[in-house]
Amino acid sequence: MERVEHHASFGGRQEVWRHESSTLGCTMRLGLYLPPQALAGQACPVLYWLSGLTCNEQNFITKAGAQAHAARLGLILVVPDTSPRDPGGTLGVADDPAYDLGQGAGFYLDATQEPWARHYRMESYVVHELPALVESQVATTGRRGIFGHSMGGHGALTLALRHPGRYASVSAFSPIVAPARVPWGRKAFAAYLGDDESTWAAHDATALIAGAGERLPLLVDQGEADEFLAGQLKPEWLEEACAAAGHPLTLRRQPGYDHSYYFIASFVADHLEHHARALR
Amino acid sequence: MERVEHHASFGGRQEVWRHESSTLGCTMRLGLYLPPQALAGQACPVLYWLSGLTCNEQNFITKAGAQAHAARLGLILVVPDTSPRDPGGTLGVADDPAYDLGQGAGFYLDATQEPWARHYRMESYVVHELPALVESQVATTGRRGIFGHSMGGHGALTLALRHPGRYASVSAFSPIVAPARVPWGRKAFAAYLGDDESTWAAHDATALIAGAGERLPLLVDQGEADEFLAGQLKPEWLEEACAAAGHPLTLRRQPGYDHSYYFIASFVADHLEHHARALR
Repeated sequence: MERVEHHASFGGRQEVWRHESSTLGCTMRLGLYLPPQALAGQACPVLYWLSGLTCNEQNFITKAGAQAHAARLGLILVVPDTSPRDPGGTLGVADDPAYDLGQGAGFYLDATQEPWARHYRMESYVVHELPALVESQVATTGRRGIFGHSMGGHGALTLALRHPGRYASVSAFSPIVAPARVPWGRKAFAAYLGDDESTWAAHDATALIAGAGERLPLLVDQGEADEFLAGQLKPEWLEEACAAAGHPLTLRRQPGYDHSYYFIASFVADHLEHHARALR
Repeated sequence: MERVEHHASFGGRQEVWRHESSTLGCTMRLGLYLPPQALAGQACPVLYWLSGLTCNEQNFITKAGAQAHAARLGLILVVPDTSPRDPGGTLGVADDPAYDLGQGAGFYLDATQEPWARHYRMESYVVHELPALVESQVATTGRRGIFGHSMGGHGALTLALRHPGRYASVSAFSPIVAPARVPWGRKAFAAYLGDDESTWAAHDATALIAGAGERLPLLVDQGEADEFLAGQLKPEWLEEACAAAGHPLTLRRQPGYDHSYYFIASFVADHLEHHARALR
């Protein structure tokens, strides 16, 4: 493991690391923000951010403005890439020319179908390898939260729902709440999980809510001017699933906001405070 | 003039405009942040940001996190590009393959030498055309502040010093304080102003301080881990010039901080508060 960037930021330090992932079979980069409390030697909780389609570890750490609040609240932020990578084309990591499949579009699940199954194991990477790596390098309290945006909002919701006890808090910006029922998700699930749609429900937040092993409160922000609202995001389906199951949900519809990082930056303080309360 | 981007941001709106600049003889883009107060119809003061080498209108608006504070303080932010542009190569805007000369490196002066003199008139653009344009489109109080980073810190300091009464406040991050004495500035000044170094002092903050027409207090932040500190920035020369002239300067040396937008984001709130106090 190697530190490839480090920048003082709000009294803490924004780092970027590169490491060989045994789960994914390739070199991965991740953003790591250490708040001032961590630099002073204090154990801190860790909040994982999952990015959306086309992103890598840079988007959130350069654009979301989260470090100001992580510094204030004493949260470590960990920001993985969105898929396995193979920039040299030498590792046999499958890809697709479309922006919504393959590299940059791992959908935070373990693929079962060829040519994806060997490397596309983002669920195992995010839930197991990444926390083990981080917790071996940095003093943490052992408590973890998870949040994300769009495809990464889907990732945060489904990973929290699929792994009860693993995360103490969860939230999402503009999540794909029902991937099995919208074009982005149906395309990715058909490729990664195959044509048998009965396997898809296990990775669809609206389908998982009914049988959730714990009732972790969900905080979701959704911009009402989001260009993907009606076609891909459908927050009303999450609302219906939570109401039916009695699952606690705070869904905030934000008038005028779009799908961009300007939206995320505007409300990221509320999300970090939501996590900090649960992670204390 | 045409609005090419608009995003809700902290209750206000981040816009990007494109317009034909008569001063520069090309199409220019600029970032415009309208705080909630402006959207509600209130006249607000305008704070101009000048970016550094290689930047365009996007860097500051996506990475600095200034909108949160502009929204709180009721400041309009205007963010021009760093030089004339000619992406199609059809307008005869000169360029140079180096990152520190030509497009992306206008140095906020009016060039007198060929092949630069026709289009490289960033001082006239920033001081005259841009405020006239903004003030014709948006209700402002008529009060203006200016700040910037690196080459843009040089721009903010020199434009405020050269145009007394035009700006009510000025500040800079990691400015090139003495361009006539460091490699970045000497290269650019030789190209844009010619080999007669007697013309350079009029665009060098450390040389302008002695004869300044007003004693506008300067706020300057400088990272102590800045990779350009010793070779290009030399804040001690500004300190000496201000001490000799009795010019008010608050120079803050920030341990551990580098030249990046992580540094700017960490202290941008202090700068916006400095300007808001003067612009009230």
